[in-house]
Amino acid sequence: MSLPLLGHLDPTFIAAMDATSDMLRRVWGTANQRTLPLSATGSAGMEAAFVNTIHPGDVVVVAVNGLFGERMVDVASRHGAEVISVEHEYGTPVDVERVVTAHPNPNIIAAVHAETSTGVVSDIQQLGENKGDALLLADCVTSIGGMPIELDEWGVDIAYAGSQKCLGVAPGLAPFTISERAYERRVERPANWYLDLNLLGGYATGTTGGQRTYHHTAPTGMVVSLKAGLERIFAEGLDNVYARHAAAGKALQDGLEAMGLTLFAEEGARLAQLTTVKVPDGVDSAAVRSYLMEKYNLEIGAGTGEYASKIWRIGMMGHNATEANAHLVLSALQDALDHA
Amino acid sequence: MSLPLLGHLDPTFIAAMDATSDMLRRVWGTANQRTLPLSATGSAGMEAAFVNTIHPGDVVVVAVNGLFGERMVDVASRHGAEVISVEHEYGTPVDVERVVTAHPNPNIIAAVHAETSTGVVSDIQQLGENKGDALLLADCVTSIGGMPIELDEWGVDIAYAGSQKCLGVAPGLAPFTISERAYERRVERPANWYLDLNLLGGYATGTTGGQRTYHHTAPTGMVVSLKAGLERIFAEGLDNVYARHAAAGKALQDGLEAMGLTLFAEEGARLAQLTTVKVPDGVDSAAVRSYLMEKYNLEIGAGTGEYASKIWRIGMMGHNATEANAHLVLSALQDALDHA
Repeated sequence: MSLPLLGHLDPTFIAAMDATSDMLRRVWGTANQRTLPLSATGSAGMEAAFVNTIHPGDVVVVAVNGLFGERMVDVASRHGAEVISVEHEYGTPVDVERVVTAHPNPNIIAAVHAETSTGVVSDIQQLGENKGDALLLADCVTSIGGMPIELDEWGVDIAYAGSQKCLGVAPGLAPFTISERAYERRVERPANWYLDLNLLGGYATGTTGGQRTYHHTAPTGMVVSLKAGLERIFAEGLDNVYARHAAAGKALQDGLEAMGLTLFAEEGARLAQLTTVKVPDGVDSAAVRSYLMEKYNLEIGAGTGEYASKIWRIGMMGHNATEANAHLVLSALQDALDHA
Repeated sequence: MSLPLLGHLDPTFIAAMDATSDMLRRVWGTANQRTLPLSATGSAGMEAAFVNTIHPGDVVVVAVNGLFGERMVDVASRHGAEVISVEHEYGTPVDVERVVTAHPNPNIIAAVHAETSTGVVSDIQQLGENKGDALLLADCVTSIGGMPIELDEWGVDIAYAGSQKCLGVAPGLAPFTISERAYERRVERPANWYLDLNLLGGYATGTTGGQRTYHHTAPTGMVVSLKAGLERIFAEGLDNVYARHAAAGKALQDGLEAMGLTLFAEEGARLAQLTTVKVPDGVDSAAVRSYLMEKYNLEIGAGTGEYASKIWRIGMMGHNATEANAHLVLSALQDALDHA
């Protein structure tokens, strides 16, 4: 982000936007032409996904197994959907059978690929194989760049992400993609000008016959930064990046169990890039977090909602996802448990 | 933006957010507690202004004297307002009498303070003195940091801006402010989760009793950058900054007239920070712009809509607003007119 800023209509910037969108397609495994970084944070990606696709009274089935599934319920209902919330115990993955049988003919089925609040990965491909005529919408905020994603192969119609997790750049952009099938069912004039895909088409994806149209001033510094982050990932190689995340997560999780701690996410559904672990009985969760921050400048997350003081969330994302860092975290946490 | 990133819940970042909001209050002349940088570009500020304040069927009078007034009509109507559009000839300021008599009892009156598309300033204070019970909404994207603004004194209830004009930092944030009077009339559950002021209150303004609540991940790099831009302005002194913009604009406009060119914006309503000038008959507008870009790396804007090839728009904003730069632009433009 320290490079000189480009004007938002500068040809160099437009080329950077194209290159960024191309790399997003590759990291997501999609050929969707309508793939672009929205000019806001990941949460606005969720907003864009729903506001552009929900017609009044549409049935939206949401798989809820964490905070971001809960947020989907809130957002979808604001946009006039009849929302069917399929609740899961926190720490467990999405039960595909329950979700796809929750309604005979939903317009949209929505799920979170990698739940940041619980450290759980769900099987989006299996949802796609059983979605019927529904559009499948996937939250990829914490999965993008940290684990394999094949949107087209899995049958995902709409996906969004964030720039600040495994892509390893600053927060401020929401990678977004939508299939032609979903785009054909879009809302013609959504109650959101800023995130209206009809208007954004010309802004970023050149779908207006080669002409770019002015919609809003693009956050050029952020886009160039995202481009650099993606280039770093492709320079290392996608498979290598994923293997590094997997190894770092495994080292961390093995170490936590070796310390006698209990992992929170269900075995077999654990994210490598975001590990959740139970706070041992009698330990002050906040004191440990403060100790780690003050002594090691190491930030680990609290749980959300009722899990606030019951679990810790430890991210190993982007260039921080290394086995060496996992060992640093483990020794720092042991120190904190001994002294906090 | 080249400083190391801060976590969005880091106390250092929260202090930076507070300092930024305080400086925004000073530059805007408001005591509104609910003053914050929204995590998106200026256009999202317009969206937030309307989606949080329009109840179904509300009457919104929009003063339209340029592209951004037109956009207000679009955005307000998407959110269910009965919009009364008071059209003005491009290049002229808002006719306060016509606007305030357009409806006997509107819920909202909206106008653009500094129209970027035409280079025109309008008298927001006079609108405020005659707004009656309506809420007054002002677009300050191009005025903030470039000319005096006194929102509270003028009676403005809701205002938004952008970071990339006279504040001189990267695009990506929308400074936003709302009075308690307007907030009391807000929509309880707007059709926009990302820009819902009920949720953003806890995120940024500490209105939940000292507790910050997690809403979305803040674009921390952008906020710190905006803070630095505001600090630069206050280090120079607001009056000095405004005087510098005024002098640069006057030098440019005097020089353009001395070259025999005709200014587009009506005399007495010309912005210093954004000058519009008519393209002389027989001159290829685009060729001149390309010549300036290629030879001088100098970007001047085309007009919008039907004025695309009829006017040029020349910005003198932020640290670029100097008399020396005005003379550089004038000599480059003379060269382009002679050779393009």
